[in-house]
Amino acid sequence: MADSPNCDLESLSPLQLFERVTEQGEKVRALKAGKAPKDEIDAAVRMLLSLKLSYKTTTGQDYQAGLPPKDLVLINNGTTKEEDEDFVDPWNVQTSNAKGVDYDKLIVRFGSSKIDTDLINRIERATGQKPHRFLRRGIFFSHRDMDQILDAYENKKSFYLYTGRGPSSQAMHIGHLIQFIFAKWLQEVFDVPLIIQLTDDEKYLWKDLTTEKAYEYARENAKDLIACGFDINKTFIFSDLDYLGTSTGFYKNIVKVQKHVTFNQVKGIFGFTDSDCIGKISFPAIQAAPSFSSSFPQIFNGKENIQCLIPCGIDQDPYFRMTRDVAPRIGQPKPALLHSVFFPALQGAQTKMSASDPNSSIFLTDTPKQIKTKINKHAFSGGRDTIEEHRKYGGNCDVDVSFMYLTFFLEDDDRLEQLKQAYTSGELLTGELKKVLIETLQPFVAAHQERRKQVTDEVVKQFMTPRKLAFEF
Amino acid sequence: MADSPNCDLESLSPLQLFERVTEQGEKVRALKAGKAPKDEIDAAVRMLLSLKLSYKTTTGQDYQAGLPPKDLVLINNGTTKEEDEDFVDPWNVQTSNAKGVDYDKLIVRFGSSKIDTDLINRIERATGQKPHRFLRRGIFFSHRDMDQILDAYENKKSFYLYTGRGPSSQAMHIGHLIQFIFAKWLQEVFDVPLIIQLTDDEKYLWKDLTTEKAYEYARENAKDLIACGFDINKTFIFSDLDYLGTSTGFYKNIVKVQKHVTFNQVKGIFGFTDSDCIGKISFPAIQAAPSFSSSFPQIFNGKENIQCLIPCGIDQDPYFRMTRDVAPRIGQPKPALLHSVFFPALQGAQTKMSASDPNSSIFLTDTPKQIKTKINKHAFSGGRDTIEEHRKYGGNCDVDVSFMYLTFFLEDDDRLEQLKQAYTSGELLTGELKKVLIETLQPFVAAHQERRKQVTDEVVKQFMTPRKLAFEF
Repeated sequence: MADSPNCDLESLSPLQLFERVTEQGEKVRALKAGKAPKDEIDAAVRMLLSLKLSYKTTTGQDYQAGLPPKDLVLINNGTTKEEDEDFVDPWNVQTSNAKGVDYDKLIVRFGSSKIDTDLINRIERATGQKPHRFLRRGIFFSHRDMDQILDAYENKKSFYLYTGRGPSSQAMHIGHLIQFIFAKWLQEVFDVPLIIQLTDDEKYLWKDLTTEKAYEYARENAKDLIACGFDINKTFIFSDLDYLGTSTGFYKNIVKVQKHVTFNQVKGIFGFTDSDCIGKISFPAIQAAPSFSSSFPQIFNGKENIQCLIPCGIDQDPYFRMTRDVAPRIGQPKPALLHSVFFPALQGAQTKMSASDPNSSIFLTDTPKQIKTKINKHAFSGGRDTIEEHRKYGGNCDVDVSFMYLTFFLEDDDRLEQLKQAYTSGELLTGELKKVLIETLQPFVAAHQERRKQVTDEVVKQFMTPRKLAFEF
Repeated sequence: MADSPNCDLESLSPLQLFERVTEQGEKVRALKAGKAPKDEIDAAVRMLLSLKLSYKTTTGQDYQAGLPPKDLVLINNGTTKEEDEDFVDPWNVQTSNAKGVDYDKLIVRFGSSKIDTDLINRIERATGQKPHRFLRRGIFFSHRDMDQILDAYENKKSFYLYTGRGPSSQAMHIGHLIQFIFAKWLQEVFDVPLIIQLTDDEKYLWKDLTTEKAYEYARENAKDLIACGFDINKTFIFSDLDYLGTSTGFYKNIVKVQKHVTFNQVKGIFGFTDSDCIGKISFPAIQAAPSFSSSFPQIFNGKENIQCLIPCGIDQDPYFRMTRDVAPRIGQPKPALLHSVFFPALQGAQTKMSASDPNSSIFLTDTPKQIKTKINKHAFSGGRDTIEEHRKYGGNCDVDVSFMYLTFFLEDDDRLEQLKQAYTSGELLTGELKKVLIETLQPFVAAHQERRKQVTDEVVKQFMTPRKLAFEF
């Protein structure tokens, strides 16, 4: 952990930490005032952020200039202040906690339900399959109406899956695959059709892109999705720019949603302003409409009101809260939801991975060597600064990104538990943990690349052609 | 307006303003030529746009390089107080003047151009046909870029016509036909294709209607339009709810327009508020998109950038001002426009006719008896209260609705002039003038009904099927 300033901070008292943060803040200001070289300022800012983080981890409070730590007992009892809240919407995720977003709080704030052991057991009983590791490990942690999906399923009433992706660039990272890996599993164990929306129109509206480029990204991304192994007879992938002009049902549902949502509402939900273009303002309806099977007359053979289940990142929930609010008013069933946690950046769990920073994640195009280098160089470690300290005090799996990634990608529960214990006890060193991750991800990415190579333009065309899927409702 | 550079501009004369715009334009060119920093150029461009706006506000004219302001006397004499202004937008027309809206003022306010004798003569020369009575009588009174249409036409470069209708109910009145009667004439004399948009989605969004009902109205209205006699090989009629799902180009243009128009803009143009649904807010893009031939790949055989000419009521101009503003920014030609006056209600010219009040207008379904009764009972008269007074002082054609209707529907110029003189002199009584109108409209409506009966579902289907029109560009 050479690049971390946290070296000896854990031994400091809250007040000592407070003073260190204050000193460092002054140092940053002085450097900026003296127009110091950018590198030097950046390094000092990183140190400042790191100190603030340590302060928060220790005291449970955000550092506030001039306000030394207090009320420690109260905080330990669980009370938090407003400014501690994580911020989550479809474009931004912010938390100051190295463990990442507090998902229990998010469930309360979003009004969804926790995926608990009972629900996981019910899924196991209904499908006769061992629950996916994403369920076993709380990666899909929240839901809306999954119990109703299961009630119906147990009574031989099926459903379809809908998920999507905004194709902003050709390069996808492994975090992008989480919802698709899970969708593939759901498709298999429940034996249901899957619809994947590629919101190239959204990317055109939000980014500096032509419609042609956005559509090209959509087609390129489709190859990576297809490489996840979806059943070609039960999966329809579409680009908005393309499909809207070929479906007799999609626009009708879009305009129905658009009639029942006001600007005030999207302003409240998505934070749009008067300066936003009308395309952004009306876009939420386009992400909402695939929740209704009548948007796909060719796909479902004209059958309407088929129940929809949406596996997605929790950051997409605002779209579907809106959709569920509108659904009964336009005579459609509310979609059910399964929410996943965020996939952490290599640098730490405070933010989502970003496709625009190549070092923030492992890309699906990375070579084995790149994977190794990135993990060794950038994966935030929960280990100690020296081998001696690590052996003595052990590492912290809660903030260790390599360990987090293993919870996503290492299938073997026992092995994961062994790694956790060994790392926590100090028996396993950071480098050794990273090695396990490297050995897990290298073959995963290589196999993905191998499958992607098999995906011809012809196969993409088949997946993206509106056609009746092999399923009777 | 603290942040506006216009602060002291209001005190400048039109000529001074003209000079300021010219100077600023030269400054921008110099900065660009000298490759000045982007910020500096941007600031200069913003100032230029602001100056142009002030120029336009003050003079009622667009700034044109080398053309100093003119007709100033007219404009200054025409200054009115806010409360005297007519109010015109796509949903409301209000005037306190019994003669109807002051169209000269509207031309100044909207920044369009008057259709003057020169232009009418040019149209006659270009087509070799006598100008339509709607041109001869100032019913189509205003235009944008019609001179450019003619320039191109004289150089063998053709165009297409686009107009539309919001199908709010099955019953259309004779006023609804004005733009279509004129479009048919334009189609004939210029020999060009015509696209007619039926905005059933708009009606769904604005009214208490299902999408099915709105689409049904669209199909019913299409029959009345087809009965106007359009060339089936050169006319495409479409419903938005239907066509959006069958065109590969329409949605792409819609989303392009939507990217380049902000909520602030549509708020300014259409008066939308935060409580309006996002469907209304984004709808203007759907009325804009048919101005671009790439919205109709099947119709124009994939040919893009064909010039568009839109004959429409002046109340629809806000949509196309917006469209013309966006067009160059999305690489499309600006549509040209021909604006008609409003068709007056039977009760008087203060408002537009309304399909929701059966007595406000002559409907295309009215029997000869209904037509007679309505005109005799409801047509606002410019005649005097007693026969004696009428003989002595004469009637007022400027406010007499029967006379106004005759200007729309009586083809014979000489007869119309005779009627005017006889009515104004008191020789012709109100009842006699009404009789002429009844005898004009009864056969007009009957003939329309007869043609409408011939319009089978099969014919409607043909007109509404996306297909290549019989025209090469």
